[in-house]
Amino acid sequence: MAAPVYIEELEQHVGVEVTLRGWLYARRSSGKLLFLQVRDGTGIVQCVLFRPDAPEGLFARAKHLAQETSLRVTGVVRPHQRREGEFEIQIRDLDVVAEPTAEYPISPKEHGTDFLMDHRHLWLRSKRQHAILRVRAELVRAIRHYFDDHGFLLVDAPIFTPNACEGTSTLFETDFHGEPAYLTQSGQLYAEAAAAAVGKAYCFGPTFRAEKSKTRRHLAEFWMVEPEVAYLDLAGDADLAEDFLVSIISRVLERRAAELEILERDTSALERVQKPFPRIRYAEAIAILQKHGNDSRHGDDFGGDEETLISAEFDRPVIVTHYPMSLKPFYFKRDPSEPGLALNMDVLAPEGYGEVIGGGQREDDLARLEASLEAHKLPKEQFEQ
Amino acid sequence: MAAPVYIEELEQHVGVEVTLRGWLYARRSSGKLLFLQVRDGTGIVQCVLFRPDAPEGLFARAKHLAQETSLRVTGVVRPHQRREGEFEIQIRDLDVVAEPTAEYPISPKEHGTDFLMDHRHLWLRSKRQHAILRVRAELVRAIRHYFDDHGFLLVDAPIFTPNACEGTSTLFETDFHGEPAYLTQSGQLYAEAAAAAVGKAYCFGPTFRAEKSKTRRHLAEFWMVEPEVAYLDLAGDADLAEDFLVSIISRVLERRAAELEILERDTSALERVQKPFPRIRYAEAIAILQKHGNDSRHGDDFGGDEETLISAEFDRPVIVTHYPMSLKPFYFKRDPSEPGLALNMDVLAPEGYGEVIGGGQREDDLARLEASLEAHKLPKEQFEQ
Repeated sequence: MAAPVYIEELEQHVGVEVTLRGWLYARRSSGKLLFLQVRDGTGIVQCVLFRPDAPEGLFARAKHLAQETSLRVTGVVRPHQRREGEFEIQIRDLDVVAEPTAEYPISPKEHGTDFLMDHRHLWLRSKRQHAILRVRAELVRAIRHYFDDHGFLLVDAPIFTPNACEGTSTLFETDFHGEPAYLTQSGQLYAEAAAAAVGKAYCFGPTFRAEKSKTRRHLAEFWMVEPEVAYLDLAGDADLAEDFLVSIISRVLERRAAELEILERDTSALERVQKPFPRIRYAEAIAILQKHGNDSRHGDDFGGDEETLISAEFDRPVIVTHYPMSLKPFYFKRDPSEPGLALNMDVLAPEGYGEVIGGGQREDDLARLEASLEAHKLPKEQFEQ
Repeated sequence: MAAPVYIEELEQHVGVEVTLRGWLYARRSSGKLLFLQVRDGTGIVQCVLFRPDAPEGLFARAKHLAQETSLRVTGVVRPHQRREGEFEIQIRDLDVVAEPTAEYPISPKEHGTDFLMDHRHLWLRSKRQHAILRVRAELVRAIRHYFDDHGFLLVDAPIFTPNACEGTSTLFETDFHGEPAYLTQSGQLYAEAAAAAVGKAYCFGPTFRAEKSKTRRHLAEFWMVEPEVAYLDLAGDADLAEDFLVSIISRVLERRAAELEILERDTSALERVQKPFPRIRYAEAIAILQKHGNDSRHGDDFGGDEETLISAEFDRPVIVTHYPMSLKPFYFKRDPSEPGLALNMDVLAPEGYGEVIGGGQREDDLARLEASLEAHKLPKEQFEQ
């Protein structure tokens, strides 16, 4: 048997006999010709069997193969008859590795999300899910490259933690050999300690919130990247957020254009993610909301509706700073000229996606930090661990 | 004030006034000269204050600064007086950002591990810990680059899972909105499903084991990378493990030589990690053990002592294959010519580090897989989720 190759490598083997391993994606026949679309994860290729050339019995067998049958196909690589730049395989032999035990449950017809999530392992085999996975992987890579290339040291925070960075109401608890331990809501406090050691640090891993709400804004488990830079002030933090978003989005646009097309993503909103991002204060955001008839007042937090209204004023992400301290966690530094406000920022994405980055300047005065812990009724001793 | 720079950038600013932000690592004085070693995470630089040049009162203040005081130092970059290729700063001004509230608890004297772990956030500030973090970050990067560059798609598995990939005795349980959920012991089953969709997949994230033993071989939480390749057999799996280890180790040797020197790591054992790795069967490993007076017999599992004895026979990692199926999880394919043996492999590292990779060919026959689940008394329905 010829050495196995992947579909994405066929170009290097034109005129040569190769063996592919993959799954039957679709099948159709036309007289003496049988066309098998085979996918192997790197692409889909048309494999053609011409009855007069086929070994004894093969044509009849191949004609009834079920969707997602696992196959070994041997044949010669040829340029595709009609599609320039593509290739096809003239089948010489074909081996069934494994046959499905049931009919493939996902058809081109519309399925509900529950049905598809119950068949998630099979749903992953669709073009659209491949595209989503590839965009996500590119984004993860872009995020890591950004921080690695900008002098940040990866310092992964532990998942088990004794403290509640984002409040105590959304903690998942587990029994850690007789002691309660919580699943991390954020690696921030660890990344802060690391930044004081190495200057610039980041962690990037799963974080957990036992959210009561079931919306796409309230996930139980999600990956979060958390950079921390010693001595960085609010303006520097906003600069970093801006540069970071521009960098990772342009990389995905450049490298995953084909996938974004499969997803029918209108990329114009992504292409507009360029510097400078507008920067407004919380008070200005409230004014925008009131202008649109929203009855938010100073001291109110923003929900999805408010974030959408605010971001709709701008053609790219907007950085909103100086929220009331009462809305924000204990660790933010207060604005020296207006101590009721935090030196914080939220970056709100266009198209209703809401807050994509939250950050700000950390309190660097120990006495104030301890007073803030007390005001939030958080147990000081747990933060000493 | 001059624009802030990092110590690693000083070479680009010779003769120019710069501002550094960092922490006092050490201090000594000699007559009219005061030497402050300042670290900022990118390096340590000597900052020199000459009393006659110092602004009023600065010399007296600076002379008493405590270790790890947070500082802003302004001064001119000069080549180091005695060390070629290094730089120093002639201090013009110096600002205290924050003073420690207590004496720095870590001194050059030997501390116990418990003490250092209680002060982990400060311990991170030492040269040795920096070196360890940088080697780890390089290794993580090397691992991701290897798979990204070899056509593997990153598909992160969830942390919450209903199933027990590595047995039920070491599971951490949590309450997921009224339902029990477990912390993942392995993303393998998800990566397998992904590989059947995309050909080659990997996940790389934290995994959990509620181990009873407290040893460096038994961690409650650790990051694990898990590649899965459709159609790969045991020999291909061993090739992949070998190529992967050679690649990531050579990258760390090349890029983290300075850190390995700080750690006083004898790199010769690492330099010997070259292809081909010896490949032996479990039966041969048993023979090696017996030769050395170890009383292991066919059917016994290897502990740390056994792994050390086996690996000591070789100058580089050794790949041990064909363990008894009774020692291995349900998902391995049985050797067709000897069905009591698994088509599995463990890669044992030299120097007593033991198993660094476990892998093998997966069972691809559904009926046998279901029989294996039953033989292991594992609940089939949970594996359908």
